[in-house]
Amino acid sequence: EEVEKLLQLKAQIADDVQPHKFVLKCPKGTRDYNPQQMAIREGVFNTIIKCFKRHGAETIDTPVFELKETLTGKYGEDSKLIYDLKDQGGELLSLRYDLTVPFARYLAMNKIANIKRYHIAKVYRRDNPAMTKGRFREFYQCDFDIAGQYDSMIPDAECVKIVAEILTSLDLGEYKIKVNHRKLLDGMFAACGVPDDKFRTICSTVDKLDKTFWEDVRAEMVDEKGLNPEAADRIGHYVKFQGGMESVELLLKDETIQKQKSAVEGLEDLKLLLVYCELYGIADKVMFDLSLARGLDYYTGVIYEAVLQGYTNKPSAKEEESVSVGSVAGGGRYDGLVGMFDPRGKMVPCVGVSIGIERVFSILEQRVLASNAKIRTTETEVFVVSAQKNLLEERMKLCKELWDADIKTEQSYKRNPKPLDQFQYCENNGIPLAVIIGQSEIQEGVVKLRVVATRKECVVPRNTMVEEIKKELAQLSRDT
Amino acid sequence: EEVEKLLQLKAQIADDVQPHKFVLKCPKGTRDYNPQQMAIREGVFNTIIKCFKRHGAETIDTPVFELKETLTGKYGEDSKLIYDLKDQGGELLSLRYDLTVPFARYLAMNKIANIKRYHIAKVYRRDNPAMTKGRFREFYQCDFDIAGQYDSMIPDAECVKIVAEILTSLDLGEYKIKVNHRKLLDGMFAACGVPDDKFRTICSTVDKLDKTFWEDVRAEMVDEKGLNPEAADRIGHYVKFQGGMESVELLLKDETIQKQKSAVEGLEDLKLLLVYCELYGIADKVMFDLSLARGLDYYTGVIYEAVLQGYTNKPSAKEEESVSVGSVAGGGRYDGLVGMFDPRGKMVPCVGVSIGIERVFSILEQRVLASNAKIRTTETEVFVVSAQKNLLEERMKLCKELWDADIKTEQSYKRNPKPLDQFQYCENNGIPLAVIIGQSEIQEGVVKLRVVATRKECVVPRNTMVEEIKKELAQLSRDT
Repeated sequence: EEVEKLLQLKAQIADDVQPHKFVLKCPKGTRDYNPQQMAIREGVFNTIIKCFKRHGAETIDTPVFELKETLTGKYGEDSKLIYDLKDQGGELLSLRYDLTVPFARYLAMNKIANIKRYHIAKVYRRDNPAMTKGRFREFYQCDFDIAGQYDSMIPDAECVKIVAEILTSLDLGEYKIKVNHRKLLDGMFAACGVPDDKFRTICSTVDKLDKTFWEDVRAEMVDEKGLNPEAADRIGHYVKFQGGMESVELLLKDETIQKQKSAVEGLEDLKLLLVYCELYGIADKVMFDLSLARGLDYYTGVIYEAVLQGYTNKPSAKEEESVSVGSVAGGGRYDGLVGMFDPRGKMVPCVGVSIGIERVFSILEQRVLASNAKIRTTETEVFVVSAQKNLLEERMKLCKELWDADIKTEQSYKRNPKPLDQFQYCENNGIPLAVIIGQSEIQEGVVKLRVVATRKECVVPRNTMVEEIKKELAQLSRDT
Repeated sequence: EEVEKLLQLKAQIADDVQPHKFVLKCPKGTRDYNPQQMAIREGVFNTIIKCFKRHGAETIDTPVFELKETLTGKYGEDSKLIYDLKDQGGELLSLRYDLTVPFARYLAMNKIANIKRYHIAKVYRRDNPAMTKGRFREFYQCDFDIAGQYDSMIPDAECVKIVAEILTSLDLGEYKIKVNHRKLLDGMFAACGVPDDKFRTICSTVDKLDKTFWEDVRAEMVDEKGLNPEAADRIGHYVKFQGGMESVELLLKDETIQKQKSAVEGLEDLKLLLVYCELYGIADKVMFDLSLARGLDYYTGVIYEAVLQGYTNKPSAKEEESVSVGSVAGGGRYDGLVGMFDPRGKMVPCVGVSIGIERVFSILEQRVLASNAKIRTTETEVFVVSAQKNLLEERMKLCKELWDADIKTEQSYKRNPKPLDQFQYCENNGIPLAVIIGQSEIQEGVVKLRVVATRKECVVPRNTMVEEIKKELAQLSRDT
C-alpha cells in the first residue's frame, strides 16, 4: 500500500512538473501578514475600535473600488498615485485612495446629514514604498469622522480627544498633537503676499516642513513654484509660531495678521479648541503649530497631526537609526467635500481623524522582535493526546464532546501520533491543558488531565471531564 | 453674527456650484454596508471566527491584488471573470478571485508545510451580479484550510464538522452537507466512456445540476461539449446515486465502477469520511451525492457543499418567491495547487472549506426586515444631558470623566441643545442611561441618573457618579 501511495504521488508530481517560471512574490509595496503579525494587528484594532465605540460611533463599509470620476479632482497633486483598473468593458474604476472621499460619496448618495462613524479598511496608493518604515502601497486606514451641522469646535475637540485616548492606550510613548487651521494658513499666506491661486500649492510645500528643512522648503517655493523671495521669507517668519494659548494670543495681536479676516476666524477657532482640550484633560498633549499644513486639498478648518516623540521625520545622516515613524495620526475639518458630490451642492460639514495604523504596526512589530517575546497565534485550550496506537476514534469522540462544550480543542491529524510529538506540540503552541487517553483510561471510564506547563496530572471521570476542564482552565487563567 | 455666518455659507455654496455631472453610485455589482448591515455582519463574523478558533486555527492576510501570473491557469473557464488592473508601469496585477490561490502562493513562497488557518476577506469576480440573491462582484469569502501531509480523511472530516457547527450556530434552519469525491467522479466518467480530455469540462457541466434540470445538463454535454449521447445517459444513471453509507456500498458493488481504480479509491475515502462524521455526531447532516461536482479545477479529492433546506436553487416560475440561496458553504481537497507554485513542484496537500457568507447576510438581513426588529448600531451606555442653557463646559467635564472611566458616552454637539431633543436621541438610539445636570445639580455637587426606558430617576453624588453608573449598567444588563 505504501509503495502504491508513493507511485501515485510520483505520478502527480510528474503531471505538475512544468517549467515553473512563477515569480513567487507579493506585488511591489504590499505584504502578507503572517499569524504573528495578525495577532498584533488584531490587538491594535481592538484597542482602537474600543475607543471609537466609547465615543458612540457606528461603522460602515464601502467597496474597495469606486467609479473613477468619484475620485477625480479630490487629491490635488497626489492624484497621479491612484490605481486604475483595466477597462474590461463597463465602468471605469479606481481603487480607493483614502476612506474620506468614499465616505463623502456615501453621505451624498444616501442624503445623510448626521453620522458619527468609523471605518477601518485598506486603501491604495502607487507611491514609492518604504516598507521598513511602514510605508506601503496597500495599507490600512482607520478613520473616525463626525458629519453634521454643529456648534463650533465641539466635534473637532472630540476628534483630538480620541487621538489622545488611542495613542495613550496603545502605549507608544510620549506624543504631541499639533493643531493648526486652514483659514489661518490662508490668511497668513495672504498677509505674506502669496497670490490667491498659489495658496494650495504653497500649502503643499509648507506641509513638507516636518520632513525636511526650511531652506529646502523655501527653495521649492521660490524656484519651483515661482513665489517671490520676500513672500517666502515672510512665510518663514510665521511658520515658527508654535506653543499653547499664548502663541495664539500673540498672533491675534500681530497687526498684519489682524487685517486678514480669515486668519482671525481661524485663531478664534483655535482658542476655543484649546479651551475644550483643557476641559477634556489633554491640554498638555496639544500644541498649536503654524507650520502644520497637511497635504490634502479638501481641508477647510482645523487640522491636526499627532507625532511620537523620540522618532524623527527629518532626513538623518544615519538613515537606519532614524525610524522616521513620527507622524501617527492626522485629520481635520472638511466642510466642502460632501457638497462636491451633491447635485445641488448641499453641504454637510465634517471633521475627522485618521490613525496611521501601519506605523503603529511597525513600531509594535519591532518591539516584539526586540523583546524576543513569543506571541500566541491560536487560542487552543486543550490538546487531546493518545497514549497508545489505534485510539483515533476515541480521540475523535473526545474532541466532539469538547467542541460541543465550546472548549477550544485540537488533536493530531495522524492516525498514530507519537506521545512525545503530541506533548511537544502543546509546548510549542502554548496550549495549557492536555487530555490523555490510553487503553486503561478507556476501560476505567476516565481521562488523564495534564497541565502542560507544570506537567502536573490528575485523573477525572469521563462523565465530568468537561466541568473539570472548565474549572482547571479558569484556575489557570486566574494564575497568570 | 448669524447674518455673517449665512453670508459665508452662501459664498461657500456659490464657490462649489459647478455643473455637477457626478453619477452618485457604487460600481456595478458592489454595495455599501450601512451601520445596520455592519451590525449583522459583525455578529456573523464573530460566530464564525469563534468556531475557527475553537478548532485551533490561526489567521493570515494577503494583498487584495496579486501578480497577474499568480492567478493565471488556476480557474479554468472562470478566468475571464478576473479583474485586471490597468498597466500604469511596473507589474501587471489582478484582483484576487478567491482566497485559496493566494493561500497556496503564501505557502509555497514561505515554504510552509503545515498550517491550519482561516482568512476572511473580500474577493472580486466580474460576474453577472444578482444582488437580491446575495451575488455580488465584490464579496466576502470566509475560508478555513488545513495544509499538511496527514492521514486520510482526518482533516477532511474536521472541515465538514466545522461547516456543521457554523450552520447550526448561525441558526439558519435545516441543512444538508453533500459530499462527493473527484476521483470517484473521474472514475465514473471513465466508466461511462467520457474521453480523458473532457473530464474537467463535463465536470463543470455536471456542477450545474443543482441549479438546473438534467435535460439541460444533458443537452449541454451532447450539443455544446460533443459528448456522445450514450455516455451522457450513463452519466445520467450514476448522478442519481445519493444517500448514506448504503449508497456508497452499493456503488462499490457496481461492476462497471469496480473496474475503475480511481473510483474505488474515492469510494473508500468516502466510507472513511462517513465513519468519522458519525463519530463527530453529524452523520444526520451529511449525505453522499454523486451529482455534486463543484466547478473549480483544482480539487483532487473529497468535495462537499452545504445546502439549506427550504430554499431552492432550481429555476422557478415564481422567481421572487424562490430566494435561491440554497448553497451556503463548500470546499474540498486540493493536493496539487501549492505544487503549482513551488519551483520544484513540492506538494503540500490541503483541504478546506469556504462559508458563503454573503448568502448568510442576505438571509439574516431579510429576516431582520421581516421581523421589524430594531438593531442597535452603537454601544453607547450613557448620554450626558444638560437641563439648561450654557452648560456645555460642565457636560464636557462629565464626558471626560466617563470616557476616562471607560464608560461609552455621548453628548450633543450643540452648545445649547433642548432637553427634549436630548432625551429623544437616547430613546431613538437605545441608550440605556442619561446623566442630567442643571444649575442646581452643579451647586449641590450631584448629578441626576435617569433610566431611559422607565424614566426612573435618582440623584447621586458627583464624586461617586462613575461607580453608581457602573452598578446601574450592570443591573440593567442583568435585567435584559
